[in-house]
Amino acid sequence: MSACEFESLEKSLESHLPEAELSEVKRILFGKDTQKFDLPACAVSAAVERDFELKGYRFEAAQEQLRPPRRIRVGLIQNHIVLPTDAPILDQVNAMHSRIGEMVEVAAMCGVNIVCFQETWTMPFGFCTREKEPWTEFAESAEEGNTTRFCQELAKKYNMVVVSPILEREVLHSTLWNTAVVISNSGNVLGKSRKNHIPRIGDFNESTYYMEGDTGHTVFQTQFGNIAVNICYGMNGAEIIFNPSATVGALSEPMWSIEARNAAIANHCFTCAINRVGTEHFKSEFTSGDGKKAHHDFGHFYGSSYVAAPDGSRTPGLSRTRDGLLVVELDLNLNRQISDKWSFKMTGRYSEYAEELTKAVRHDFKPNIVKE
Amino acid sequence: MSACEFESLEKSLESHLPEAELSEVKRILFGKDTQKFDLPACAVSAAVERDFELKGYRFEAAQEQLRPPRRIRVGLIQNHIVLPTDAPILDQVNAMHSRIGEMVEVAAMCGVNIVCFQETWTMPFGFCTREKEPWTEFAESAEEGNTTRFCQELAKKYNMVVVSPILEREVLHSTLWNTAVVISNSGNVLGKSRKNHIPRIGDFNESTYYMEGDTGHTVFQTQFGNIAVNICYGMNGAEIIFNPSATVGALSEPMWSIEARNAAIANHCFTCAINRVGTEHFKSEFTSGDGKKAHHDFGHFYGSSYVAAPDGSRTPGLSRTRDGLLVVELDLNLNRQISDKWSFKMTGRYSEYAEELTKAVRHDFKPNIVKE
Repeated sequence: MSACEFESLEKSLESHLPEAELSEVKRILFGKDTQKFDLPACAVSAAVERDFELKGYRFEAAQEQLRPPRRIRVGLIQNHIVLPTDAPILDQVNAMHSRIGEMVEVAAMCGVNIVCFQETWTMPFGFCTREKEPWTEFAESAEEGNTTRFCQELAKKYNMVVVSPILEREVLHSTLWNTAVVISNSGNVLGKSRKNHIPRIGDFNESTYYMEGDTGHTVFQTQFGNIAVNICYGMNGAEIIFNPSATVGALSEPMWSIEARNAAIANHCFTCAINRVGTEHFKSEFTSGDGKKAHHDFGHFYGSSYVAAPDGSRTPGLSRTRDGLLVVELDLNLNRQISDKWSFKMTGRYSEYAEELTKAVRHDFKPNIVKE
Repeated sequence: MSACEFESLEKSLESHLPEAELSEVKRILFGKDTQKFDLPACAVSAAVERDFELKGYRFEAAQEQLRPPRRIRVGLIQNHIVLPTDAPILDQVNAMHSRIGEMVEVAAMCGVNIVCFQETWTMPFGFCTREKEPWTEFAESAEEGNTTRFCQELAKKYNMVVVSPILEREVLHSTLWNTAVVISNSGNVLGKSRKNHIPRIGDFNESTYYMEGDTGHTVFQTQFGNIAVNICYGMNGAEIIFNPSATVGALSEPMWSIEARNAAIANHCFTCAINRVGTEHFKSEFTSGDGKKAHHDFGHFYGSSYVAAPDGSRTPGLSRTRDGLLVVELDLNLNRQISDKWSFKMTGRYSEYAEELTKAVRHDFKPNIVKE
């Protein structure tokens, strides 16, 4: 069975394990069982017709006396590119807009308040090729580009916060960035968060295209909760962290299910991990610096988008092979409840960590090593 | 099926999944397949006779041109308490010494170079009870206690580094600590590492007994590699981090398999997660601050000790229910190989993180929150 045929971990476990063992296995792997919730019939049939997976789950929090529940719904979208990678750029972008448009419409039917798309969603993940052309032509202004305008329309039409990760061209300096644009449900651009930690491994040749972000770990206050994008250490009070990604392969997949969960646990917040799906073929062949033959694709983007809760539980993942929309209802009150219960922020030795980390990055750092 | 009957995740998957799916499921859950290695027949039969599980795995690294392999073997021991929790203290400690003694002998047959026992291994995990007596009587001097002397003998006899986590009494100040004593293979006490982040949740009433550690994140240079104990951010060049634990329950178990792996990945090093096993009954009943009835046990310590490699792969876990010795051969060269390949230490924005964390712990900290 090849890695791009295997549909999902959950499906495999559910088809083969006896009931009693299945519940133990799921408990150990995923934490507390996540409840499904009923999706509106119109959304279900639209998803079938438009050929994407649609799943809905709910994380509940306890009822408090002084605060009402703060239930909101997030939508995570994973999808294939629509046209071949050598189609005219505008056609590719328009086809993606139209695909995302029809998926967001279903998200709206499901009552989604905040939607997030995959990393550099308007384009193939061409950064493996190391070719500048035509990939840099996909870059757009975060504030005034066509894609941002398109998202602003969606935001206003559906009263939805839109997190739109694009390849950004900062027109003033003519620089490129890997940027998530955050658009308020009013349609205004609230701000942007640039990818901070750029990988340099295998075919992730992203550092050829853009540099480390300079926007820090900004938190965006929206009507539906304080959100942040990408890796964030939770110190700024984000309630939901979106992590749009584009990742493939044997190295990454076993880490996929643990990293976002670990971040949710460590930071007492919700995390949303989104990966694209499918295999993207490029006209020019490229090498991977591993002594192997040149090839035309980066590997299989394995989808599997999911949401993790501050108690370490998580929803099942979307498919490894199909487009999909994951709708998850969260009660943001769960964050403080878990924080009060586990007290990581209080019991953690952050001052000490800050001091040690500050020392460790100095040029004259001498580690404390005990020898005999 | 109750949580203390379910033997192990791996066993359940292996009994029910068809071959082709099993390999996909294991790849996604555990990363690259870990090789088993042949354990000597005398060790296998001694383990059967002494009624504990014995497993052996190997992580390989690539052959380099300038450095020879640095293969060493670590041993992780998980075990039940031997006598009832109300037996005389000295009898309880002696029974544990003798159980550990016979398990370490098998570790020696397997060529183990560094062995680590479970958290506060000489005693029941009585901290759930909030009774000071008799649990504080189990505390011993890290430098001169009976248990340290016992471990020094083992270290010399078997030419083995011993990591011995005990309840420490610092005689000078009459204070208690949760401390791992690191004993060199020469038999000398190399130093100690005190538990730094003390949980305050549910029945983990440890803060009633001892305070946050004051030993920082020390690294111990041994003949077999640089090691550290407990949570460590890897900045000091530890090659193996031991994490002796005592943990139970629905909250903790789904996190067990992800935290040590995440640390191994983030720090390019090996991590060894060790948990005790069994249910410990206490004579006096205690409450959990959750409105439920008083009870006599803390829950089931689920064992499942394992080793994770810097590439995110991991060994299967030991049993959830049986005593066990896990022997793992590591080539420490893998750490630098993965570091060179993934470059987290170089691409990570540590200076920025240090700066942000330093700001975040100040009293006058104002987070960067963008509003409309």
